[in-house]
Amino acid sequence: MSAYGSVTPALIDTLRAVVGPDHVLTDPEELAVLGRDFTEDLQGRPDVAVAPGCTAEVAEVLRLASRERVPVVARGGGTGLSGGAVPLEGGIVLSTRRMNRILEIDRENLFAVVQPGVITQTLQDAVEEFGLFYPPDPASKGSCAIGGNVAECAGGPRCVKYGITRDYVTGLEAVLPSGEVLRVGGKLLKDVTGYDLVGLLVGSEGTLAVVTEVTLKLIPLPRRVRTLMAPFPSLEAAASAVGGIFQAGIVPSCCELLARAALRVAEEHVGRNFPNEVREAEATLLLEVDGQREEDVDRDAMALGELCLQLGADDVLLAQSPAHARELWAIRRAMGEAVKAQGPYREYDVSVPRARIPEALRAIDEVTARHGVRHLSYGHAGDGNLHVNVLRDGLSPERWEAVLAACGPEIIRRIVALGGTISGEHGIGCVQRELMPLRLGPAELRLCRAIKQAFDPQGILNPGKLLPDEAPAS
Amino acid sequence: MSAYGSVTPALIDTLRAVVGPDHVLTDPEELAVLGRDFTEDLQGRPDVAVAPGCTAEVAEVLRLASRERVPVVARGGGTGLSGGAVPLEGGIVLSTRRMNRILEIDRENLFAVVQPGVITQTLQDAVEEFGLFYPPDPASKGSCAIGGNVAECAGGPRCVKYGITRDYVTGLEAVLPSGEVLRVGGKLLKDVTGYDLVGLLVGSEGTLAVVTEVTLKLIPLPRRVRTLMAPFPSLEAAASAVGGIFQAGIVPSCCELLARAALRVAEEHVGRNFPNEVREAEATLLLEVDGQREEDVDRDAMALGELCLQLGADDVLLAQSPAHARELWAIRRAMGEAVKAQGPYREYDVSVPRARIPEALRAIDEVTARHGVRHLSYGHAGDGNLHVNVLRDGLSPERWEAVLAACGPEIIRRIVALGGTISGEHGIGCVQRELMPLRLGPAELRLCRAIKQAFDPQGILNPGKLLPDEAPAS
Repeated sequence: MSAYGSVTPALIDTLRAVVGPDHVLTDPEELAVLGRDFTEDLQGRPDVAVAPGCTAEVAEVLRLASRERVPVVARGGGTGLSGGAVPLEGGIVLSTRRMNRILEIDRENLFAVVQPGVITQTLQDAVEEFGLFYPPDPASKGSCAIGGNVAECAGGPRCVKYGITRDYVTGLEAVLPSGEVLRVGGKLLKDVTGYDLVGLLVGSEGTLAVVTEVTLKLIPLPRRVRTLMAPFPSLEAAASAVGGIFQAGIVPSCCELLARAALRVAEEHVGRNFPNEVREAEATLLLEVDGQREEDVDRDAMALGELCLQLGADDVLLAQSPAHARELWAIRRAMGEAVKAQGPYREYDVSVPRARIPEALRAIDEVTARHGVRHLSYGHAGDGNLHVNVLRDGLSPERWEAVLAACGPEIIRRIVALGGTISGEHGIGCVQRELMPLRLGPAELRLCRAIKQAFDPQGILNPGKLLPDEAPAS
Repeated sequence: MSAYGSVTPALIDTLRAVVGPDHVLTDPEELAVLGRDFTEDLQGRPDVAVAPGCTAEVAEVLRLASRERVPVVARGGGTGLSGGAVPLEGGIVLSTRRMNRILEIDRENLFAVVQPGVITQTLQDAVEEFGLFYPPDPASKGSCAIGGNVAECAGGPRCVKYGITRDYVTGLEAVLPSGEVLRVGGKLLKDVTGYDLVGLLVGSEGTLAVVTEVTLKLIPLPRRVRTLMAPFPSLEAAASAVGGIFQAGIVPSCCELLARAALRVAEEHVGRNFPNEVREAEATLLLEVDGQREEDVDRDAMALGELCLQLGADDVLLAQSPAHARELWAIRRAMGEAVKAQGPYREYDVSVPRARIPEALRAIDEVTARHGVRHLSYGHAGDGNLHVNVLRDGLSPERWEAVLAACGPEIIRRIVALGGTISGEHGIGCVQRELMPLRLGPAELRLCRAIKQAFDPQGILNPGKLLPDEAPAS
């Protein structure tokens, strides 16, 4: 079925000449590692991996791949959660690991210009030294790369106040499969010169072009952060409190929802417990406020705590020090790992209007119970993004596949009926692409396909991702 | 050259049947009004104007137009500044004036759902009653429509803190020329389900689809605003102070640059003067800070004033009341009208990295002086967006055309060399489209054309806008 060309020894030789022999991998074991990301249990089989050192080398690799009609899958930190970096059709893995320089931190204009292989946390630390802030904070920020963040339009807890990756990308250099180098946007806060190609490339999951340079907007670093936990007697109470917080004019910098089941699993995983008030609650909000002045933020934290009590919280726990806040966050951040430790699972990264979170969770309870499976769910209550993890537990692999095949579309249909969508921040990749027609109509899908065709007429960039097959999959 | 069909009496009859006879205009004088927007002196000649009352009627109008291959130009408030609503090839003007309902103000989720004909200020006033805020504030906010704001990705002074129209549009219903109705996005703060069609439609200047419903993110209303004016001895001093303000961690909600010449013209126009300290200064910053708590904002205003003095301001004037602030803004807001009152002019809506503003203004001084013309320039110093108005003054129309033909490309080349772009917030429309190759390369233009082709294969939506002709214009 694949119309792709093969990676021949001659092509590998040419790739060695382009990027240098030390930067071409052909060892099967090493390639196997580059065939995975953090998505459950996917394993791709690339034929070769290259690590170009500059844009010109990326362009030459893409020209060669186009000539030979060989798939190219760009790879950053490999921490994606939808299979975005998994090479489904073999071909070339193009690693950005050598293109990992922060090219500029422009303190006059408040922008950073970086290569795609820069680790997100590295950038955040670097700009923080100048009192600047790059807010997007995916859970994997210590190991994910900016290029991958751009490809997936990464999110994180702080998006509720600060927005998503797309809100910070103002300029891109990217290479088309033809080898042509695009330069779009720049250090510009306003730019309406033509269609928004920058925004279109962000979140395109490596299917349109390979990003080689990113211009990112920076903002002043909030110098003070306070962390609170507010346990509530029910999910409904916690979720409706979130609405009340925003209506009161407070925009928390994080607003995470921890339902009891997920919280317990995380506690077990890290071997540390939350305070009893939180452990016993049906649902807890983990909240942060931030700002420039210590006294303002302290007062905001007190006001937010008071408000939570008025809105039905059983209690409010204010972290007494940054160390105490880190402890609370450590449990929250362990949730992804804790879920993994439960054994095989499938994650749905749904997003709904935030007031619909209780209904969404009840719908998921209902669907999973009917299919006899458990789910562990948690997420970003402030922005309506929930990570729903359905667990295989004792099911046989065959039964599990059958349950997922039935359960997944049911969950997404229920979410879409609530005004929600398939993915909030992890991307569609390969694991969710066959669900796309549940959310996008035929015209929307046709337009997405036409855009793909315009950028990548041979379909060599990250095949099998984002868009469903045109004919229904067998 | 035009391959468009004619608007026949039979088509007009059919349009009357679709939208109702009262909502079809054929009177030449009324049509002449609908052939203009606020762009200098353009006059289009539509054959007919229709005002559909609902999405189904818009879809039917577009189906008919596609069948007959007749151009369709969507029209909101008609206040655009790049000719976006001017029907260059005749055809149908599709007015959204009847689709002017605020469908929902969702206080739980903080979104508004509106029809495209809602006036921006009307929406702002409506949400303000609930303590909510829709920040984008183009100068014409009292008469421009949300649909037009979406088409042009409108900006305004508050963008420096709050972002542009695209940052607030999370969902769209839009009709393709085929009559198919797209529904993309929703009341979602995070959505990475497929390519970003919402962001692509924003700023597409009516060339891809006709927007029929808009979902807009709202935020808590800042309850307190303070206004300051800080006169500086030079443009450089004022511009570098802007960088210093952001580096100090203060994000003003407005940061406008008033150069002396433009300021004097505005004073004359409104017949009121700024205080003497401001009148004598080479350049003045008009600044605002806002927030939830009176005492915080007052303190921010004092701190900002102190900082301006440290950064070289000759003086700082703090508006003592909302009425006083309105007086200062009245002069600033009069600038557009004051420029118009000078006689024929051509506006360039350039955008540069903000630290480059002094260089940009010097470059424009140099180019215009060389061509023997004056310019009046002012703009949004905080986000680098300058409105450069080149005045015809005593030049003959022929000489004026010749000067513009030489001057425009020179200005844009100089701006692009500074990392800037052709348009920050007014759009490309017809007046700047032939300048596009100075900013976008062949690959970028080809991609834009392919996107246009995917949405509008017959090219009936707003022909002659945004993209330059493929063959060089004669």
